[in-house]
Amino acid sequence: MCAVSHDKAYEIRPATADDWPGIWAVMEPVIREGETFTWDRDTDEDTAHAKWMKEAPGQAFVAVRTGDGVVLGTGEFHANQGGGGSHVANAGYMVGPQYSGQGVARALCAYSLKEARAAGFRSMQFNAVVESNVRAVWLWQSMGFRILATVPEAFNHPEIGYVGLHVMYQELSSP
Amino acid sequence: MCAVSHDKAYEIRPATADDWPGIWAVMEPVIREGETFTWDRDTDEDTAHAKWMKEAPGQAFVAVRTGDGVVLGTGEFHANQGGGGSHVANAGYMVGPQYSGQGVARALCAYSLKEARAAGFRSMQFNAVVESNVRAVWLWQSMGFRILATVPEAFNHPEIGYVGLHVMYQELSSP
Repeated sequence: MCAVSHDKAYEIRPATADDWPGIWAVMEPVIREGETFTWDRDTDEDTAHAKWMKEAPGQAFVAVRTGDGVVLGTGEFHANQGGGGSHVANAGYMVGPQYSGQGVARALCAYSLKEARAAGFRSMQFNAVVESNVRAVWLWQSMGFRILATVPEAFNHPEIGYVGLHVMYQELSSP
Repeated sequence: MCAVSHDKAYEIRPATADDWPGIWAVMEPVIREGETFTWDRDTDEDTAHAKWMKEAPGQAFVAVRTGDGVVLGTGEFHANQGGGGSHVANAGYMVGPQYSGQGVARALCAYSLKEARAAGFRSMQFNAVVESNVRAVWLWQSMGFRILATVPEAFNHPEIGYVGLHVMYQELSSP
């Protein structure tokens, strides 16, 4: 069978402590590569854990393969600012390079929009979408995000040098 | 004498551990008021200390009154993002309400631009300038910042409700 339904190939659910090794296996190559995330490329596992595993009203979540439970991708959302800015969510997603092309990033994003809205956030903002990560930019746009601004030369890509960072945004409509 | 030269009324210098009580005296009312900073209004002193007192290449600094050394205002700058985004500085400034009108905020900002450039940052970005804080918006514009975007209704002002948050930016030119 060629046609595997995506919604049966994996499920998205909140991350548990037991998921961490699988999450880190997805995150580490993305962080080390340094082409899509504004994280220090030598970020160690403990620091990554502290940064990624969010508490309510935020959440860390995983896409796990049906059957064997392998973590294909992960995401998190949290308040982008404190105080008077705490009703705007920020989110991030990482998919294992070997699991691309299955719609995992799209499914993670869709999950985060639904869950962030349910947690009371009124909108979602991305602070730093790397301009050269064109597949992601296109994907977020197709999910309803619009580019509010591009901070010029705000990202030093390891291969292509200085590129912009997009600030992207969308309101979270009522369910 | 009415004409007190600003550059003799106070000096701007790096903050020391001994400055903290004076810094906190400036910060606490600004945080509690919740009208200009996206910090939780009940942020305690230890958390504020950890958030504000930056290490190199960042810096926390103070405006101290000539003679008695009273802290009139404080600022800090740091890398706005990690990894490929670490060449862009972010900064914040707070001035004691009773010390406004002496050009302290402008002097703090000018100091941060100079020092951030000297520390190797290529540009400075503000992520969340409250739209209703019109004096600040005007001041930063007069210091060379431009508004790249306004995130709509991203700040819930305690008195006037939802207002935008400006993303502001400027390149740091060579000395």
